[in-house]
Amino acid sequence: MTIETLDDLFLHTLKDVLYAERKILKALPKMERKATDQKLKTALLSHRDETEDHVVRLEEVFEILGKPARGAKCDAMVGLIEEAEGLMAEISDPETMDAALISLAQAVEHYEIARYGTLVAWAKQLGLLEAAALLKSTLDQEYGADKALSKLAEQRLNAAAAG
Amino acid sequence: MTIETLDDLFLHTLKDVLYAERKILKALPKMERKATDQKLKTALLSHRDETEDHVVRLEEVFEILGKPARGAKCDAMVGLIEEAEGLMAEISDPETMDAALISLAQAVEHYEIARYGTLVAWAKQLGLLEAAALLKSTLDQEYGADKALSKLAEQRLNAAAAG
Repeated sequence: MTIETLDDLFLHTLKDVLYAERKILKALPKMERKATDQKLKTALLSHRDETEDHVVRLEEVFEILGKPARGAKCDAMVGLIEEAEGLMAEISDPETMDAALISLAQAVEHYEIARYGTLVAWAKQLGLLEAAALLKSTLDQEYGADKALSKLAEQRLNAAAAG
Repeated sequence: MTIETLDDLFLHTLKDVLYAERKILKALPKMERKATDQKLKTALLSHRDETEDHVVRLEEVFEILGKPARGAKCDAMVGLIEEAEGLMAEISDPETMDAALISLAQAVEHYEIARYGTLVAWAKQLGLLEAAALLKSTLDQEYGADKALSKLAEQRLNAAAAG
């Protein structure tokens, strides 16, 4: 695929993010199984449900563009998931694993926040307002998921300070 | 390296981020050369200066821990930079390149925001308050750099709407 215009770049990035979301969907169940803290398990599970919605919204954006919803390999997400799997394999202590899982999930969230932020801006620039609204809904959920994980991390910090 | 405690995880993540910052330092000059918009060039250059400070601060944190400042391969940053280089190679139009460069730099920023956010929380949890303050200074700069890039993207959007 040659990228000559913002339309091309928008489509390329949509494919990148579709691939990334599908990769996250596959990785999340393993992270849920590794989690011990019940709130963390619940947060990861609810993020899995949201991620399914994100895929559906992306498919809707492809439909608006009249293009097939095909992913394209996203090297960044491949790297993020490799890092997550590598780290999970090295930890056996449950407390340490939970701390690592929160941080890994937040790294994934932030990648998505960056990508959807960009896609919303480009959709507006291209006059694709319906697509912009769909992508903005997902962006808001990514921010929400990141905030929920930060709150979990903070509760752990306070518990450690009190303990 | 086996990771059994939060201390181990903190040290592991510091090494990961040191590797990532050094990799960014190598990638930024190429991105600067590819940029056309003068404000974007300046933003990337000023982020390079900041990244040099981030490396120095990380070295100070290693010193606080009494550990050598050695990086450890960060698969996520390898992936992010691969993605950036792949995309830059596919674009020839200067306008489209500038849009892509902003988005790629923001993806890198967000990875760092996630990592430094985690490191600050863990440093506090471990009672390493001086380290927490150093890492927080970098985190604030990463947020600032991301905001500056968002502002650039917004100006482009407004210019396109007016044009």
